[in-house]
Amino acid sequence: MAKPWATLGVDLHVEPTGPGLRRGLTDALREAVRSGRLAPGTRLPSSRALAADLGIARNTVADSYADLVAEGWLTARQGSGTRVAERAVVPPAGAAPRRRELHRPAYDLRPGFPDLASFPRAEWARAARRALAAAPNEAFGYGDPRGRLELRTALAGYLSRVRGVRAAPDRIVVCAGFSQGLRILGTVLRARGVRTVAVESYGLDVHWTLLSRAGLRTLPLPFDHLGTDPAPLTDEGAVLLTPAHQFPMGVPLHRDRRAAVVDWARRTGGLVLEDDYDGEFRYDRQPVGALQGLDPDRVVHLGTASKSLAPGLRLAWMVLPPGLVEEAAAAKGGIDTCGVVDQLTLAEFIVSGAYDRHVRSARLRYRRRRDALVAALAERAPAVRATGVAAGLHAVLRLPSGTERQVLRAATWQGLAVDGIVRYRHADADVEPMDALVVGYGTPPDHAWTGALDALCAALPE
Amino acid sequence: MAKPWATLGVDLHVEPTGPGLRRGLTDALREAVRSGRLAPGTRLPSSRALAADLGIARNTVADSYADLVAEGWLTARQGSGTRVAERAVVPPAGAAPRRRELHRPAYDLRPGFPDLASFPRAEWARAARRALAAAPNEAFGYGDPRGRLELRTALAGYLSRVRGVRAAPDRIVVCAGFSQGLRILGTVLRARGVRTVAVESYGLDVHWTLLSRAGLRTLPLPFDHLGTDPAPLTDEGAVLLTPAHQFPMGVPLHRDRRAAVVDWARRTGGLVLEDDYDGEFRYDRQPVGALQGLDPDRVVHLGTASKSLAPGLRLAWMVLPPGLVEEAAAAKGGIDTCGVVDQLTLAEFIVSGAYDRHVRSARLRYRRRRDALVAALAERAPAVRATGVAAGLHAVLRLPSGTERQVLRAATWQGLAVDGIVRYRHADADVEPMDALVVGYGTPPDHAWTGALDALCAALPE
Repeated sequence: MAKPWATLGVDLHVEPTGPGLRRGLTDALREAVRSGRLAPGTRLPSSRALAADLGIARNTVADSYADLVAEGWLTARQGSGTRVAERAVVPPAGAAPRRRELHRPAYDLRPGFPDLASFPRAEWARAARRALAAAPNEAFGYGDPRGRLELRTALAGYLSRVRGVRAAPDRIVVCAGFSQGLRILGTVLRARGVRTVAVESYGLDVHWTLLSRAGLRTLPLPFDHLGTDPAPLTDEGAVLLTPAHQFPMGVPLHRDRRAAVVDWARRTGGLVLEDDYDGEFRYDRQPVGALQGLDPDRVVHLGTASKSLAPGLRLAWMVLPPGLVEEAAAAKGGIDTCGVVDQLTLAEFIVSGAYDRHVRSARLRYRRRRDALVAALAERAPAVRATGVAAGLHAVLRLPSGTERQVLRAATWQGLAVDGIVRYRHADADVEPMDALVVGYGTPPDHAWTGALDALCAALPE
Repeated sequence: MAKPWATLGVDLHVEPTGPGLRRGLTDALREAVRSGRLAPGTRLPSSRALAADLGIARNTVADSYADLVAEGWLTARQGSGTRVAERAVVPPAGAAPRRRELHRPAYDLRPGFPDLASFPRAEWARAARRALAAAPNEAFGYGDPRGRLELRTALAGYLSRVRGVRAAPDRIVVCAGFSQGLRILGTVLRARGVRTVAVESYGLDVHWTLLSRAGLRTLPLPFDHLGTDPAPLTDEGAVLLTPAHQFPMGVPLHRDRRAAVVDWARRTGGLVLEDDYDGEFRYDRQPVGALQGLDPDRVVHLGTASKSLAPGLRLAWMVLPPGLVEEAAAAKGGIDTCGVVDQLTLAEFIVSGAYDRHVRSARLRYRRRRDALVAALAERAPAVRATGVAAGLHAVLRLPSGTERQVLRAATWQGLAVDGIVRYRHADADVEPMDALVVGYGTPPDHAWTGALDALCAALPE
């Protein structure tokens, strides 16, 4: 006989075998515990419930439980029912040891993370509750591959208001982080026959790898104090840029070059992929509107909640030229891949104004950190110049020539995780070598920022 | 007549009315375009596909398309099919038009959906609040590509207890629905040099398409009353099965065949992909434990929250043989793609017992619907035999030979969206043709079930 679940307590899958029911049940339960299939502490169904479900006498189950309590496999306590004993499982020999977390750096100053400690948990939970209550039933079904309309509508309004993006809900495709967006675009471009995507000399190798995996060659453009230089662009099918705040160098793309990129796209039918990863965080310079506003038919605007809220949400978005929406939706797999609850919650978060409030408060926090960083450098490491600090969550610290490696070693001794600029340079980039650190100020929690700065200054040349 | 969607291209809901089929279809399509319900640029199904789906002659559809091209509503171009013309829509004056929901079928009996109205919104919101409060800060960062450890731990306990799966958290990869899982596995198999995946004669074409897109040929296995027959398996690299409850036929895989499949995998080094899509919903037959329990080194167990909770969560999971975890994580993109809040919420939902409670109550609801279906058929359509009803969220209604199309047409007249078995048959399947309906009982809300049954019985031969 076999019966997989009980009507009370927990679902339980046992297949009693052998002679006598009691012995069969006992053997099956013992084996389930011994093998670890029933984890220590697991609560078993009541004898009554299990008996009803197995269609056998309650006493048989009770006796079986009693046997196993006597053998030490189960424990029975008044009020907490029958449970698998805590020490019941013998771990298999040679089981993988738990990964050790030794040598974790004291401070993580690598860029790319917001302050995870400031994720607005309570506000998010409230928005989720409201969103869940308001959602139509069909929201819980298989969704539009572009993402929930509520979110696309909220984003269209927000992006147009805050970033100057020309957006309509039906031109937006929600995606699981920037990575999924770039992967989708890589697939679409490749399917259109594109073979080469121009990129920046400095950037993230994971993005270049994503494009390579889609079968696209990445070709770096020159870079100088005006940002990335689009002049060498010819018949590449697309160019990937961070116009508002070059990553990681921090300069905004000069207005002449913005115009030149769009001109190139119009002239050649190319596509500009605008990675607007931290467009919300501007401190003391003129805001830089989205490049997409210049030509929504030639620029794909990519934004993300990874910096403004948290990477763990895995929510990003693309605003696409009209002709590209269907192809992108198909490349996404023809169905939505992002959870509807988070999508509806983000929509509610934006519409209710909680998103704006959160971004404002985060901006203030990051600005204070940035100010402390600049002040500490001026006082304690005057040989080091911080650049790219007008916006974003990181700065580039220019080091005296030839010192990058040495500073990185010193930083490690100080318990810092921090990156040298070299790891952000494209292998084929034709740029003058420089020595620099890329210092993110998102990750350390507020209380740790002073300590992180002390450690950083101690690692820098005086 | 009415039919809500077509097998190729886009979802399309047309309800030709008036005299003559051609004119009715033309009017319905024109109205769909004029109202904006079919957006400019939308690709229409091929005339063959739409004709097959509507159960009418292909020429009728082709003529109708031709009329609308002549009128300027559609465009037809070699190689890109028939599309809605870009300038076709006259936007109505005034505010954004609310999408018209005319002609929606009164009852949707297509399989694959749980009862969306019963998604436990309030419990989910409470679990989310608790999960958000308890999460460590790092949970909001970029995650382990396998998914959150809390969820993998909860799943390992649950699957072992309820489905007899031999699972450890580090062998589980969370994915955005079964589709992402299958796509990942397709990529992994192809990278390992596999070229052919055996599949079942009956199944979901979207799954076959996913495998094809990964570069894999799908080869259907024979099917009879014992389920899918693994005897012809030779050197295919993998086989995709629904052992607990064949989709859509509903039979469990016979125990000899379960053993034979695992033997084949051991002998040839092949992999068994176990699609356990509705393993939680069993009513009155012997439980069928997961095939994976027979050999966790050769069987990948795939489960999903799409049937037990809601597809909109986009949460599914794979339990993988040890050697496959790293490859699967890489094929997922090397980072987590599922939102952390939903993952933590599902973990909390499982650990707190809310998941078990929800599944039990859903099981009871579906069982009542199933009982009502069987009783109604016995009384009002004795010529029709319901099979595959011991488990799951759908039944197969065997029809008198040669009547499937006619019954589908009658069902459409009754305002039912329902599928014939023909759309679940693999194009290369060598099985005796049969006439049957696949009737899902998940979608209609409770209050509509009686009405849905009345409409269904009215469409069936007496």
